[in-house]
Amino acid sequence: MANPTTAMLVIGDEILSGRTRDANMHYLAGELTEAGIDLKEVRVVSDDHDAIVAATRALSEAYTYVFTSGGIGPTHDDITADCIAAAFGAHIDVRDDARALLQAHYDRQGMELNEARLRMARIPDGASLIDNPVSTAPGFQLRNVFVMAGVPSVFQTMVASVLPTLKGGAPLISTSTRVERGEGDIAGPLAELSERFKDLSFGSYPYIKNGVFGANIVIRGEDEAQVQTATAELTALFQNAVK
Amino acid sequence: MANPTTAMLVIGDEILSGRTRDANMHYLAGELTEAGIDLKEVRVVSDDHDAIVAATRALSEAYTYVFTSGGIGPTHDDITADCIAAAFGAHIDVRDDARALLQAHYDRQGMELNEARLRMARIPDGASLIDNPVSTAPGFQLRNVFVMAGVPSVFQTMVASVLPTLKGGAPLISTSTRVERGEGDIAGPLAELSERFKDLSFGSYPYIKNGVFGANIVIRGEDEAQVQTATAELTALFQNAVK
Repeated sequence: MANPTTAMLVIGDEILSGRTRDANMHYLAGELTEAGIDLKEVRVVSDDHDAIVAATRALSEAYTYVFTSGGIGPTHDDITADCIAAAFGAHIDVRDDARALLQAHYDRQGMELNEARLRMARIPDGASLIDNPVSTAPGFQLRNVFVMAGVPSVFQTMVASVLPTLKGGAPLISTSTRVERGEGDIAGPLAELSERFKDLSFGSYPYIKNGVFGANIVIRGEDEAQVQTATAELTALFQNAVK
Repeated sequence: MANPTTAMLVIGDEILSGRTRDANMHYLAGELTEAGIDLKEVRVVSDDHDAIVAATRALSEAYTYVFTSGGIGPTHDDITADCIAAAFGAHIDVRDDARALLQAHYDRQGMELNEARLRMARIPDGASLIDNPVSTAPGFQLRNVFVMAGVPSVFQTMVASVLPTLKGGAPLISTSTRVERGEGDIAGPLAELSERFKDLSFGSYPYIKNGVFGANIVIRGEDEAQVQTATAELTALFQNAVK
């Protein structure tokens, strides 16, 4: 069976202006790989209604699951929930279950659940809530789209609560071999190796360190014995250059 | 005049598997913002022919400029140049000008310009070369698409040589104000402020630090005096909480 596929949609002007360096993409990529779920595409768009709606529709149709990050806070530029609702033609308003969570949270803190904070209870009809143990304001799932916060600590706890509910694939086994030779010397033998091990994937990730060229060769596959055999052959091919 | 718009296409399985954390997106975002060019969208796709071709076409049509990163080395999974050619129906083969650059480079190093390295001289007809002072293998520009290396040091020198050739917009002035209040308290007054300063953009970027909630409020615009006035009003609104 083919592994389920995933896309991610990062929403936020702050990423595109270079003000903030996104951390959620790298985190999600690692978690999904471990769960045997392929991350196939990421898009980053600005806080723009039409851009968010179009990207949500395109990714939801093309992939098994979509994760979004960002734009679900209380300020005027937090428009993700409304855009997800619009993408699927769902009705959206402040929902009683989300309002109750927020009310209890702000009561405990002795703070007011004002109009701005109430925006965080806007949840589309038909969506199920995603727990937020860090700051209470929930994410939600609508169809195959998981809508999550952009603040990394919140994003990570939401991923942790969503991942076990997904249908994972066979986890991939991988090895990484550091070869201190120019990629141009590695490429020919590596292509031959990849021809002989059709079930494995071979990646070459070049680096330059202190003026010396090299590459990390990553071999991936579901069958551990095959991965080990191919790695041993690779090591034999570049014996002196393997570091 | 509206500022020219840009998109970026990051190509590489290593980013999507979580093996490598992308650095080029954040770098390019900062450089473009400084040059007054808006980065509007980023897509990350895997080393897959159809995915690269489709994303290149979509972004090239929608934006003034497109920058790609990754997939132009000598190994079998480096397919970006061929995909860009396919996206525009351009013929591609080893080109004499690129081959001459590589030949001179490897002659100097006493290394062989073998078949794998020669792949890096595959350049579409009609494309102009982008200089690579770090490791010689050139990038190229075809139509409004700039094809660049994924290795950060090479990517950065290519950006440096391309940027001055682009039509920049008016650079944006911005201020960042740290307000130690929950976003829910900031949102109402901030929305009113943004209503009164229609030419400016207001972003709110929440954080949690040592259990204390706060937000960095970024005000952006082309008119410095307006940005300063709005920042002063923001500071007056949250006097005790501005850190």
